[in-house]
Amino acid sequence: MTEPLVAGSMIGILGGGQLGRMLSVAAARLGYRCHIYEPGAGAPAGHVAERVTTAGYDNEAALRTFAESVDVITYEFENIPTSALDILETLKPIRPGREALRVSQDRIIEKDFLTGLGLQTAPYAPVNSENDLRAGIATIGTPAILKTCRFGYDGKGQARLDAPDETGAAWAAMAGAPSVLEGFVDFSHEVSVIAARGLDGSVACFDPGENVHREGILRTTTVPARLTPAQRTDAVLLAAKILGALDYVGVMGVELFVTPGGLIVNEIAPRVHNSGHWTQQGCSIDQFEQHIRAIAGWPLGDGERYSDVVMENLIGDDMDKVPALATEPNVAIHLYGKAEVKTGRKMGHINRVKRG
Amino acid sequence: MTEPLVAGSMIGILGGGQLGRMLSVAAARLGYRCHIYEPGAGAPAGHVAERVTTAGYDNEAALRTFAESVDVITYEFENIPTSALDILETLKPIRPGREALRVSQDRIIEKDFLTGLGLQTAPYAPVNSENDLRAGIATIGTPAILKTCRFGYDGKGQARLDAPDETGAAWAAMAGAPSVLEGFVDFSHEVSVIAARGLDGSVACFDPGENVHREGILRTTTVPARLTPAQRTDAVLLAAKILGALDYVGVMGVELFVTPGGLIVNEIAPRVHNSGHWTQQGCSIDQFEQHIRAIAGWPLGDGERYSDVVMENLIGDDMDKVPALATEPNVAIHLYGKAEVKTGRKMGHINRVKRG
Repeated sequence: MTEPLVAGSMIGILGGGQLGRMLSVAAARLGYRCHIYEPGAGAPAGHVAERVTTAGYDNEAALRTFAESVDVITYEFENIPTSALDILETLKPIRPGREALRVSQDRIIEKDFLTGLGLQTAPYAPVNSENDLRAGIATIGTPAILKTCRFGYDGKGQARLDAPDETGAAWAAMAGAPSVLEGFVDFSHEVSVIAARGLDGSVACFDPGENVHREGILRTTTVPARLTPAQRTDAVLLAAKILGALDYVGVMGVELFVTPGGLIVNEIAPRVHNSGHWTQQGCSIDQFEQHIRAIAGWPLGDGERYSDVVMENLIGDDMDKVPALATEPNVAIHLYGKAEVKTGRKMGHINRVKRG
Repeated sequence: MTEPLVAGSMIGILGGGQLGRMLSVAAARLGYRCHIYEPGAGAPAGHVAERVTTAGYDNEAALRTFAESVDVITYEFENIPTSALDILETLKPIRPGREALRVSQDRIIEKDFLTGLGLQTAPYAPVNSENDLRAGIATIGTPAILKTCRFGYDGKGQARLDAPDETGAAWAAMAGAPSVLEGFVDFSHEVSVIAARGLDGSVACFDPGENVHREGILRTTTVPARLTPAQRTDAVLLAAKILGALDYVGVMGVELFVTPGGLIVNEIAPRVHNSGHWTQQGCSIDQFEQHIRAIAGWPLGDGERYSDVVMENLIGDDMDKVPALATEPNVAIHLYGKAEVKTGRKMGHINRVKRG
């Protein structure tokens, strides 16, 4: 097994949002310093990092300088341009590795990978033309949802089909991008597993959380989730299978639909995950420290849950509730230091704790 | 009551050590940014702060620039030169206020203040000459300890007297500085109360911790402390009395000797305190956030203890134990990111938690 990163080493984090911010604090707690790379000014992670580079992912010189200043590189989001990764990986190790990014950056590759492992996903079909789409609808039926395979198309990229005659409009909305048609899954609720794998190959999973979304944004995660003991075991085993297959190092969020026919993988995120924020108040070692431990070659930490927790995101105007929340017992507040409150913007979260 | 500091405000922290570091992280969690002022290079607090000024306390221009960049000023140590405070306080509020610093910077003023409140201290006598010392010994007896009144005399400043004929050597060791003779207290153990007072005058105390020192350095703090219910109440009431008398805003550490004749105040520290580090794993709101809440005009947080904790400092070579500690369950590790391990230097601490 590799020796742990020496004390005082610099960890490079691609992305300066709240996930990078909480990773930076966790890294400091283990004696490391962080260098944040972020195109946007005033990055929340920069408030609690030793160094910040404000530059785009197409700035080769800045990427090189960044990589040369750090000992290992990690990231808070999966949508990092391949060209940037090509430069960075010649200079320093990237953890989690390229394979996890390659798989999670493309919805079809991800689903092929998951079904290749024997895991269940929603029914899906690649779509590169309206003909493909019609063929897909013939197999999968409606309602269904058409999505571009890759993220980051400026908010474009999803169209719902409620009837077979909607293929023209839906395909037009993809603007010619390679896409995937996904069938709807009849699930009772969604859970996620925050799983970690160390440099030595050991795996540790936090207790699954139950997620509630509204308008496409995570609102709450509750632990414990409603799961039978068998489902709980399944959830952990399938997460471990995914991490192992990717030779993964770090924390991953695995979103699962709970159905009578078993757990269906919705998507994977090769990074710390909003649905794992409850670990800050529910475990000795939270997901952020667990990620840093993994990428720095430490043994994974004790992630056993010791409290029931409800994590609530503070989105946009939810910030108005902070003064009242500040007076409530057993509420831990985590604000992200974002300069401007905007509708739909994640401004912070709280963990409501029920002590054992 | 004053409105809370608006989100995104900058908090100035005098001192860039581990206390400043943990204060900066707590401030970020509440949506604030921090500017650290510290004479030494590579300050641990600078790893997790938006801004760092490396300058001496005699650098008037740097002090002014610092004060102008922040909204409120706090500190991680009490030994701030008066001349620096004189400059800073004309520009921005300093919390806790000057009175707390005036009292705690001088051992005689502090003891006069405490006895004036009706609290017990060790017997003491001001000493400005060998004659004073002889008179003091005649009253207080030996063993006793002679200390300079003010801190920061480069490690000089303490001499133990085991017999009355040692006055010459002891007084010589003070190098002419105003001093105080203190009698020994026959105590069973030492506890400390981490107390907070808000801008609105409300007071909240964490459960007292029991401290063990070795070679003059705190080694462990254990909660709960060995105290009777009556002693526990006394400890909290006397801490509240001290904070009220100083019109104090922020967190204070109050060290107490436990004796059959009651609690005797050893000393007060107008800041977050090493013996309060256990609150990071034992409470919803730790001492660092409590301090930031107080100085930022938030309501004080819920400091109820929910776990038994033993805090152990990692001093010097104790760092060699970190790899083993990293594998233990229920151990939270907090390292300070100090560049060099030195004998007697506080490098980090751990909190060993026993869940309820």
